Amino acid sequence: MNSKRIGRRTVALAHPPSVISYANIGGKLEGEGPLREHFDELDQDSFFGEKTWEKAESMMQKRVLRRALDQVKLKPGDLDYIFAGDLLNQCIGSSFGLREFGVPFFGLYGACSTMGESLSLAAMAIDGGFAEKAAAMTSSHFCTAERQYRMPVPYGNQRTPTAQWTATAAGCTILASQGEGPYITHVTCGKIVDKGIADANNMGAAMAPAAYDTLSAFFRDTETKPQDYDLVVTGDLGELGHAIVRDFFSKDGIDMGEHFQDCGLLLYDRERQDMHAGGSGCGCSASVLNGYLLSGMRQGKWKKILFAPTGALLSPTSSFQGESIPSICHALCISTAK
Amino acid sequence: MNSKRIGRRTVALAHPPSVISYANIGGKLEGEGPLREHFDELDQDSFFGEKTWEKAESMMQKRVLRRALDQVKLKPGDLDYIFAGDLLNQCIGSSFGLREFGVPFFGLYGACSTMGESLSLAAMAIDGGFAEKAAAMTSSHFCTAERQYRMPVPYGNQRTPTAQWTATAAGCTILASQGEGPYITHVTCGKIVDKGIADANNMGAAMAPAAYDTLSAFFRDTETKPQDYDLVVTGDLGELGHAIVRDFFSKDGIDMGEHFQDCGLLLYDRERQDMHAGGSGCGCSASVLNGYLLSGMRQGKWKKILFAPTGALLSPTSSFQGESIPSICHALCISTAK
Repeated sequence: MNSKRIGRRTVALAHPPSVISYANIGGKLEGEGPLREHFDELDQDSFFGEKTWEKAESMMQKRVLRRALDQVKLKPGDLDYIFAGDLLNQCIGSSFGLREFGVPFFGLYGACSTMGESLSLAAMAIDGGFAEKAAAMTSSHFCTAERQYRMPVPYGNQRTPTAQWTATAAGCTILASQGEGPYITHVTCGKIVDKGIADANNMGAAMAPAAYDTLSAFFRDTETKPQDYDLVVTGDLGELGHAIVRDFFSKDGIDMGEHFQDCGLLLYDRERQDMHAGGSGCGCSASVLNGYLLSGMRQGKWKKILFAPTGALLSPTSSFQGESIPSICHALCISTAK
Repeated sequence: MNSKRIGRRTVALAHPPSVISYANIGGKLEGEGPLREHFDELDQDSFFGEKTWEKAESMMQKRVLRRALDQVKLKPGDLDYIFAGDLLNQCIGSSFGLREFGVPFFGLYGACSTMGESLSLAAMAIDGGFAEKAAAMTSSHFCTAERQYRMPVPYGNQRTPTAQWTATAAGCTILASQGEGPYITHVTCGKIVDKGIADANNMGAAMAPAAYDTLSAFFRDTETKPQDYDLVVTGDLGELGHAIVRDFFSKDGIDMGEHFQDCGLLLYDRERQDMHAGGSGCGCSASVLNGYLLSGMRQGKWKKILFAPTGALLSPTSSFQGESIPSICHALCISTAK
């Protein structure tokens, strides 16, 4: 037992599960950004044909799972599990979006780290022999997030320079015990890290220490360094959070290099689109992974990436009660070789 | 691979993880109920020494984990993972309650099925060789749930006869690859089931079809019947939901028998305590399992139980938008023999 652990926090998967399908969907602004060509579906309608934004978010999850299944001619019944969650209270984006599929479901709450958490658990379920095929997925919607976490959208609330823009997007990866890759080879589960940052308009700074903690553990456990990866990509730290992580590592004498990226900095053109510190939301890293990143790996652009989405585990209630922002980061190594 | 699956939905654990410690905590009303003697800690103060009820709920999780660790002289660093979640928006009961422990954390959202979901994933993580020791836990608090899902507590809202009472309680189980038992031998993951019930004051009826679905799958996959278990215990179906499940099985020609119980019916004296349809909340099944049930198994009262907590995956927003209530049930077989 426990033979799969390397170091203290990382598991090396004995039979790395393969990505067999992936899909993403985005909204209007995601379609105006630099990753436009890397979306399977873009919808100009923020309601995605539904009557409310919450139902729209569920519809995104529904469509993205259906597409990921269709691409490899699978039926919902071929999946042993779905691992999914989202930012909405009681995760209704996932439970309502996925209820009609009839697939055994593990609901997650990892805030914007959910793509990392769901992929980690799906990979472990397959490697552990509990499943042949499993889906990992999540979503976010600018309008559902704004009205839940901040202000009603029609209020036109002014945003601080450190604010990030919640992506209207969803992504789904289907993993299987057999396949042509890319493969999930290592998983490092995050700890909850809280360094006392309490500004809910500066999530990047709150999440940076969690990213540093998990990435450090990953490098230590695997005895590797950033340069061993073609890309080290965090989820949605944005400009400020990303710079903080780079700075933390630099103090340890580790240069994160040019291949250290952030999905929140990749998804939008911050200058032209006026996105302040960058993109955020579960759907940010989910849509960047399940498009730009996995397609790039399949096309030979990158061979080995370290994917490390972060999540801020606050709620409006916790902030009203004067609390700081606990954060978490889950990291996975995705490689074209087993 | 996948050799651990029996039937379509159930996994039989090859090396059943052992319960090595468990603890629970409750509030005033839980201490006035019939399971009083089966609580490790009871607090008359609904704030548990904190300034808000949300912080109180976090404190319950903190205390219950600390106690479960202390009982077997473990330190937080001995745990490879914590699997936890709760009912609060963004699951702040867990993330704030557990942030100081520094243990790798998988956040879950399974509503009142969370004790089943967390135990399932913890057992699979250990059986799959990813962990030696893991904690599974959850909580609920009457006052946080009331103000989030229903009305502010001071409003003194009148309750319908089908309403249930959210338990102020938390429970934690620590599983390990080695131990004296009881053992988790089988896990059946729930599907999201929604039969169109939209009355948020009748959760039992909404959750009953999910319980029937998962229990049916479990009996089919394991080729067993209710009489093969000393106890088949659902989470918080309450009087009405429990009777519905019994009725569904009876239509299939299956008599659920006298050993078919519900934690929501065990926790309170419904007559004397005026609890209407019974107890509910994540903490209901969590505190009944991690006290009355596991202690009973250790004392030889029961050898094999089927534990099947249910969750209603609604939110106030989904109900306001006219939605029905999707539900889920996760089932585990817990046995004194491997």
